[in-house]
Amino acid sequence: MQCGFAFMEVGLVRTKNTTNILLKSTIDAFVGCLSYWLFGYAIAWSQGNSFVGWNHWAFANLAPEKYSEAFYQMIFTNTAATIVSGAVAERLNLPCYFVYGFLLSGFAYPALSRWGWYDGGWLKLMGFRDFGGSGLVHMFSGTCALVASTIIGPRAGRFDPPREGGPSHGQHIPGHSLPFVGLGALLLIFGFLGFNAASQLSLSKPGDGIIITYATLNTLLGASGGALTALFLNRFLPFWGNYWSYLTMVNGSVAGMAAVCAGCDSLAPWAAVVTGILGGAAFMAGRSMLEKLEVDDPVDGFPIHFCGGLSGLLSAPFLIREGIFFKQDAHSAGFGCSLLGSVVIICWAVIWCYPIFSILKCLGILRVPLEMELAGMDAAKHNELAYPASAWKEESHALLDN
Amino acid sequence: MQCGFAFMEVGLVRTKNTTNILLKSTIDAFVGCLSYWLFGYAIAWSQGNSFVGWNHWAFANLAPEKYSEAFYQMIFTNTAATIVSGAVAERLNLPCYFVYGFLLSGFAYPALSRWGWYDGGWLKLMGFRDFGGSGLVHMFSGTCALVASTIIGPRAGRFDPPREGGPSHGQHIPGHSLPFVGLGALLLIFGFLGFNAASQLSLSKPGDGIIITYATLNTLLGASGGALTALFLNRFLPFWGNYWSYLTMVNGSVAGMAAVCAGCDSLAPWAAVVTGILGGAAFMAGRSMLEKLEVDDPVDGFPIHFCGGLSGLLSAPFLIREGIFFKQDAHSAGFGCSLLGSVVIICWAVIWCYPIFSILKCLGILRVPLEMELAGMDAAKHNELAYPASAWKEESHALLDN
Amino acid sequence: MQCGFAFMEVGLVRTKNTTNILLKSTIDAFVGCLSYWLFGYAIAWSQGNSFVGWNHWAFANLAPEKYSEAFYQMIFTNTAATIVSGAVAERLNLPCYFVYGFLLSGFAYPALSRWGWYDGGWLKLMGFRDFGGSGLVHMFSGTCALVASTIIGPRAGRFDPPREGGPSHGQHIPGHSLPFVGLGALLLIFGFLGFNAASQLSLSKPGDGIIITYATLNTLLGASGGALTALFLNRFLPFWGNYWSYLTMVNGSVAGMAAVCAGCDSLAPWAAVVTGILGGAAFMAGRSMLEKLEVDDPVDGFPIHFCGGLSGLLSAPFLIREGIFFKQDAHSAGFGCSLLGSVVIICWAVIWCYPIFSILKCLGILRVPLEMELAGMDAAKHNELAYPASAWKEESHALLDN
Repeated sequence: MQCGFAFMEVGLVRTKNTTNILLKSTIDAFVGCLSYWLFGYAIAWSQGNSFVGWNHWAFANLAPEKYSEAFYQMIFTNTAATIVSGAVAERLNLPCYFVYGFLLSGFAYPALSRWGWYDGGWLKLMGFRDFGGSGLVHMFSGTCALVASTIIGPRAGRFDPPREGGPSHGQHIPGHSLPFVGLGALLLIFGFLGFNAASQLSLSKPGDGIIITYATLNTLLGASGGALTALFLNRFLPFWGNYWSYLTMVNGSVAGMAAVCAGCDSLAPWAAVVTGILGGAAFMAGRSMLEKLEVDDPVDGFPIHFCGGLSGLLSAPFLIREGIFFKQDAHSAGFGCSLLGSVVIICWAVIWCYPIFSILKCLGILRVPLEMELAGMDAAKHNELAYPASAWKEESHALLDN
Repeated sequence: MQCGFAFMEVGLVRTKNTTNILLKSTIDAFVGCLSYWLFGYAIAWSQGNSFVGWNHWAFANLAPEKYSEAFYQMIFTNTAATIVSGAVAERLNLPCYFVYGFLLSGFAYPALSRWGWYDGGWLKLMGFRDFGGSGLVHMFSGTCALVASTIIGPRAGRFDPPREGGPSHGQHIPGHSLPFVGLGALLLIFGFLGFNAASQLSLSKPGDGIIITYATLNTLLGASGGALTALFLNRFLPFWGNYWSYLTMVNGSVAGMAAVCAGCDSLAPWAAVVTGILGGAAFMAGRSMLEKLEVDDPVDGFPIHFCGGLSGLLSAPFLIREGIFFKQDAHSAGFGCSLLGSVVIICWAVIWCYPIFSILKCLGILRVPLEMELAGMDAAKHNELAYPASAWKEESHALLDN
Repeated sequence: MQCGFAFMEVGLVRTKNTTNILLKSTIDAFVGCLSYWLFGYAIAWSQGNSFVGWNHWAFANLAPEKYSEAFYQMIFTNTAATIVSGAVAERLNLPCYFVYGFLLSGFAYPALSRWGWYDGGWLKLMGFRDFGGSGLVHMFSGTCALVASTIIGPRAGRFDPPREGGPSHGQHIPGHSLPFVGLGALLLIFGFLGFNAASQLSLSKPGDGIIITYATLNTLLGASGGALTALFLNRFLPFWGNYWSYLTMVNGSVAGMAAVCAGCDSLAPWAAVVTGILGGAAFMAGRSMLEKLEVDDPVDGFPIHFCGGLSGLLSAPFLIREGIFFKQDAHSAGFGCSLLGSVVIICWAVIWCYPIFSILKCLGILRVPLEMELAGMDAAKHNELAYPASAWKEESHALLDN
């Protein structure tokens, strides 16, 4: 899954920052692992009260039976940080990745996951239900991405030039390799299938393999619904120029999967398709909004994950098998809980990300200098070009002549 | 698996159509999923007679225990449509993908899979045996690919120019990225291993894990046999120019796997190697034939899948553990059934594909205009270049100077 | 895993040899499979004495229950040959791959794995312990890589030019695509997770799922430790130029995983992090040493696998749960056994590789001619360019005008 996100981001940046984004995605993962190991697991899953746990720091004295769950949660954790790294791509200063990756993976996300998933978590006790993380993972990450990309500001050239007679929105900066985006997306779909299935394995009792197959099938159907919705909206609505856009379809499929996460254990197949369609439509709406607001999010982290996740979280109480559309009595409180959960998630993300990125900005280390941004970070910082010209040219035979 | 096919195709087209093929491969998958969900599953696997089922449209009232099987079959279904999409790459008009993807994935392939795999299917009742789909999947797809690529005609420049003193066959149009072909092939091998193992899980009773390991091991051995056969034939036979061709080896390995599918549950390891060798040789023969007939199949879908699959289907009755070479009495009818099955599969593929593609051709919407074909579809249709020049150039510092 | 190695190597060579390295990596795999099937399995795992087995050649009369293990070992075997293929990339003559791949995968590695892993193997009987192959796989491969790259000599231009006032070490030849390196690395991490988990499944009794989760978690933590160690050493030590190097981090993570293999079933999480850090540091030391010795190993096979593996093998007796740091009595002999094992592994690798590559060198077929090396092997040998210019240019409309 990490791999999928990483390659979508690689494909979406320009060659001059390719090494940078590769490095950042990987650092995210490794820093997140260590941070989650040291603090996150204890906060999220150990004994404690309904807000926070305070045992098993660094897995100390953790029963080996828990390791499998810990491993799974560790991977999940990285998703949040990775989505943010995409939103601030091509301009964030490298050390900032260590800072926010450490804080988000080690503290902010674990606390949230305790509230919503741990058996005694306060949101879960109130009736909040989010099987695969539409809210707890995707909306949280999407909100963080929005806050971060707003504070850091757009890339040079994205909204700068005076647009006389130009399009009503900004200048699109295309990424350098659509096939890598596609590769990332396909890995991501594969990862989602595994993850939504594993959500069951890890979070509840054995013996319910049927839920796993529900989850897998629904994820695939949600992706299909989201992808085709986004594709057709982009083709037939005038705002985006009436093209068959691959990128839009791919992002729509991810939004559809993000939407379907919330109820993928108990949505009927047709309801998964509907959820995916809602997710795809929400993604298109969110992307247009971002464009109007002149917020530059190179990987569309906010529209995909926040809008997709929100549409799924709010529609799940209606569409799941025991939902409001089918049994008025049983889950009529579910929508209220989802709504409350959404507000909590958004606030929590803002409470963490706004100070982190604001402080880094005040310290003047948030963003790379404009010269470096224009020249690209690969040469100056990493001394490693992603595609070195010397490796692509046929070497002259001069050496032979000597 | 889908991912593997997609990347082989991406690598085999030119940059000007890369976005197009990515989009098509993905649309195939999503349209196929929805179509199979709506119609295909009911036709293939629900109660009915030995030709067609008519229950559980859109999975309605489907017992949850069946979802796992349904999911697996859904993925399988997409393979057929994807192989066809490769054969008509770089010239088919986009809406046609929706049409044939919907029909093949929703109706043609499901009916065929009922006949050969469903417990009451008429081919299966007669004794037809095709464990992993050499015939039902690969030959069917290969035939569709041949019909489609014949009707649509070769790409501009492939066989056009008068060849005075040139090679005895057409002008090879190389794809834009061999590493992507390799990536696709490796994903495909990985996918095959999983699929041939899963064939057992999904299609029969639990408790026979041994068959799974047979299937996995044989798939790998078949791929090895096919790859080395194709590599050496290409190197030492004069027709193809005596080169060590990576592409040929890769395609040979896929042909070897397609061949081994038919009996991969019960071939001895040495017999799997032999089957792979036959598959690799059949692939080379098919490719030469296609070249002579001046049919342009950019991804070699027919030689790989039809020839590979056919060689496997027809050799399996001899080579399997209870085969003609070992027990004359038991399975002497097996070869006849395989032969009959092959004829049925070919006819069924032609019955569906010939009308579909002919009607689309008559309507004049089958193929993109020549101008667009020469200029590439990415710019005109998708407004998304796979590798935009602006993302690859170092931006000048002009912006800074202002 | 094979796939991961293949793509790291593809990314690390120059475009002129990309097809060549793809072909070689795949040949390695297929030749290795056949060779292991014919000879390797019998030597390693069949009845025999504590040095060698002599039954079940080509899996003859092998009980089907053993197939799963055989398959797993077959995949593992290829790793050794692949690592060597990277070390001699861009200059080894193609037929040599068949020779050494056949010998290493069919004979040398299987014998070694019998000694260390088979229940009656002499190293195992003495108390040698190497759960996931730090020594038996990684150190062995790393030694082979060193011997091979020393005998074949550096690539033209790597250490040749007189360095007046230049850096104190050679001229780095960058690979052509860092994203492919990253892709390979991520696939490799994924593969390692699976493999270290599967080591348990395949090599011991069922019912100990806890060890699997240990192994998986420790592999990830080891990778994190190794990656960050290498990254910071490269950034803050003067020798390598004070850059944030993605390549270094990636290689450090692989070294960390190689180190953690030895004890990944019984290291506490913190000990896995420490082992990873040791692996990352050993990698940096090994790479500096290689540079000083003017040995050209394009993929850093020796520093990653030998140094990483050695640090893991020697530290495991101290760091594992029942290790010297915790129980003085129980395993005090473990370090001696690891040391003895290391010597045996190194000697065995030299005994095989030195003659193989020396004889090939004497025969004059080891290395491609200098002209071909400078021009690249793709055009001359394979007639397949990885990225053909014709596929990347927008075709002129000349064809249309005719």
